Amino acid sequence: MSKQTYTVAVVGATGAVGTQMIAFLEKRDFPVGELRPLASKRSAGQTITFRGQEIAIQEATPEAFEGVDIALFSAGGGISERLAPEAVKRGAVVIDNTSAFRMASDVPLVVPEVNRHALQKHNGLIANPNCSTIQMVVALKPLYDRYGMDRVIVSTYQSVSGAGWEAIEELQQQSKSVLSGEVMECNALPQGSLHYPIAFNVIPQIDVGLDNGFTNEEMKMVNETKKIFADDRIGVTATCVRVPVFRGHSESVYVELQQDFDLTEVRELLANADGIVVQDNLSEKEYPMPLQSAEDTRTFVGRIRRDLTHERGLNMWIVSDNLLKGAATNAIQIAEALVEDGLVRRG
Amino acid sequence: MSKQTYTVAVVGATGAVGTQMIAFLEKRDFPVGELRPLASKRSAGQTITFRGQEIAIQEATPEAFEGVDIALFSAGGGISERLAPEAVKRGAVVIDNTSAFRMASDVPLVVPEVNRHALQKHNGLIANPNCSTIQMVVALKPLYDRYGMDRVIVSTYQSVSGAGWEAIEELQQQSKSVLSGEVMECNALPQGSLHYPIAFNVIPQIDVGLDNGFTNEEMKMVNETKKIFADDRIGVTATCVRVPVFRGHSESVYVELQQDFDLTEVRELLANADGIVVQDNLSEKEYPMPLQSAEDTRTFVGRIRRDLTHERGLNMWIVSDNLLKGAATNAIQIAEALVEDGLVRRG
Repeated sequence: MSKQTYTVAVVGATGAVGTQMIAFLEKRDFPVGELRPLASKRSAGQTITFRGQEIAIQEATPEAFEGVDIALFSAGGGISERLAPEAVKRGAVVIDNTSAFRMASDVPLVVPEVNRHALQKHNGLIANPNCSTIQMVVALKPLYDRYGMDRVIVSTYQSVSGAGWEAIEELQQQSKSVLSGEVMECNALPQGSLHYPIAFNVIPQIDVGLDNGFTNEEMKMVNETKKIFADDRIGVTATCVRVPVFRGHSESVYVELQQDFDLTEVRELLANADGIVVQDNLSEKEYPMPLQSAEDTRTFVGRIRRDLTHERGLNMWIVSDNLLKGAATNAIQIAEALVEDGLVRRG
Repeated sequence: MSKQTYTVAVVGATGAVGTQMIAFLEKRDFPVGELRPLASKRSAGQTITFRGQEIAIQEATPEAFEGVDIALFSAGGGISERLAPEAVKRGAVVIDNTSAFRMASDVPLVVPEVNRHALQKHNGLIANPNCSTIQMVVALKPLYDRYGMDRVIVSTYQSVSGAGWEAIEELQQQSKSVLSGEVMECNALPQGSLHYPIAFNVIPQIDVGLDNGFTNEEMKMVNETKKIFADDRIGVTATCVRVPVFRGHSESVYVELQQDFDLTEVRELLANADGIVVQDNLSEKEYPMPLQSAEDTRTFVGRIRRDLTHERGLNMWIVSDNLLKGAATNAIQIAEALVEDGLVRRG
C-alpha cells in the first residue's frame, strides 16, 4: 500500500519562518508529495532545495493553490487576508502563521500540546498563534489542568528574528557599527516609521501601540491565551520587549494558580508534559537561555520558584526558539495532527 | 567666609563605579578639599585626573583613612567589610556601595529622594542600595505615598556594567567573536566558576543562587525595598536577568496599589517627583530605553498603563543608568545630603 502524500504549499517560502517550515517538512519526513514554494513576484524564479532537489519558487496567486492539500502561510497578514480564502476555496487546508484570522470565531487557534481537539471544528482555515504566546501556553497547560489558573503576568525578552530577516541583519550591522565606532543605521525596529537601535539596547515595544496603553503584541498574548484555553476568565497582562538576541524568546512569567501547589509536583508535571524540557537547578547554574535553546523545537522551563507575594503564586522562566516552536514547528505539528486525525480535506 | 571643604576618599578608584564617583564629585562641584583615590596595591602609583590635576592612587590601608571626612567605598564587599570600620574608627563617614552592610539594622540604607531622613540616625556608616533597587524605589515612592502599595512584581533587563569592567570587555569581545565567526570566550558572567556567553544571549541569573530558588540579586531587591520604605508589609518578587546592554538597567514593573488610582494623576505624580522623567507616549513611540538614558543621572518611567488582571494593578517600565543613579550619583547625593544636613562628623 503506497503511503498517502499531500501537495503542500508554503507561502513566504524565502522568509525567516518560511525557510524553517520547508526545512522542517523535510526533517520530520512529512508526507509531501509535491512541495510548492510560493512567494512574491520578486522572488519567483529563485529556487529552494527540498530533499536534495531544486524547486522553483512560484508567484503566490490564487491559481497557484489549484490542487494544493495543505497551505502554510507566513508572508504577512495582508497576503493571508487576500490569498488564504482563495486557497480554501480551492480545497486546501490553510495553516496561517499571521495574526489575520487568529481571533475569528470560526478559526481554530491551535497549539497541538494544548488544544489539538479544536482542529476538529476547522472550516479550512487554522491559525498558528503568536510566537510569544505559543511557548507560554505550552508551559502553562499542565499547571492549568492540575491547579486552575487565575492570572498571568509576563514580561518578554524577544529576539529580533521575530521581526524577520531585515531585523536580523540590522542587529548584525548595528553591532558591527558600535564595535567599530561608527554610527548605527536604524531601519527595522520597532515597526512603523520611527526606528531605534536594537544593538546593545532594549526596546519596550513590539508591534503597534493601542489605545489602552498596551501594544498589539501584548494584546495578542492576552487574547490568544484566553482563546487557546477556551477560558475568558484567565487574566493575562504582558509587557513585550525586544532584546539584542538573534534567535529565541525568553519570558519571565508569574502565574497565580487557583489551588495550592507543591513545587516538586509542578516540576514533575512540566517534565512529563509533551514538548517541555525542565532545566531547573539554580545552584548548578542550570536554566534555559536563548543561545542554548536555539534550533531546538522544544520549550524550556526553569527558575521555577514559589512567589514571595502570593501563596498561590509561582514564578518561572520560559525559553523557546521563536522560529521553530514559535512558528514553523507549531505549524508543521498542526499539519501532522490534521493528517493523523484525518482532517485534511481531500478535493 | 571660606567655604567648608572635605577630605574625600574613593575606595575602588579605578573601578567602573569608582571612576564615575570621581567624575561626579567634580561635575557636581562637591566641596572636596583633598581627594584621596584608593585602590588595591596593584593600582597604587597610577594616577587619576581630578579638576585638571593628576592625583596618585594610594593603596587602600587602614592608615589611608587618617584625616578623611567622607569615604566612598565601591571595591567589593570584602574590602568594605575589612576597611569601612577602619575608616569609621578614624572619624570618616562611610558611604558604602557594596552589599556588605545594607541589611545591618544600625546602617541606614538611603536613596535621598525616598528616605533622606534615615541619614539622621547614622553611626558613621551609610549604605547605598543595589543599582536595580534604587531606580525602582525612586519610581515607586510617589505612588507609595499617594496610594499605598501592596506588592510589586519586577522583571529586570540589567546591563553588563553592573558586573564591572571585565563584563563590559567581555560583551565587547564576545560580540566581535560572534560577528567574525569565532568562538566566544566566557570568563565573567554569571559570577562564580561556570560562565555563559552574554553576547546575543540573556542570562537569568545575577549574583549567586539561594535556597529559596531566588538569586541574591533578586533578594536584594526584595529586602532593600522593604528597608528603604521602612515597611515590611510590601510584597516584592523579582526576576533579575542580564541582557547584552553595556549601560543602563531596565525594569518591567507590576505594582498593586492599596487604593484606586487615576492614570493621569499617576503620570503627574511621577512627573513632579524629584529625579524622575516621564517618557510615556506609546503612539509616538516615546518610552525609556537604556541607550537613551545612559550618562543621565535621572530615572526614566514610561509604558504606564492600567493592569488588565487587577483593578488596583499598574504596569510601568523604568530605566536608569546603573553606574550613575544606580551607584555613583546616589552615593554623591547621599554625601551632599550629609553635608547639607550637617551630618558629616568632623574629627
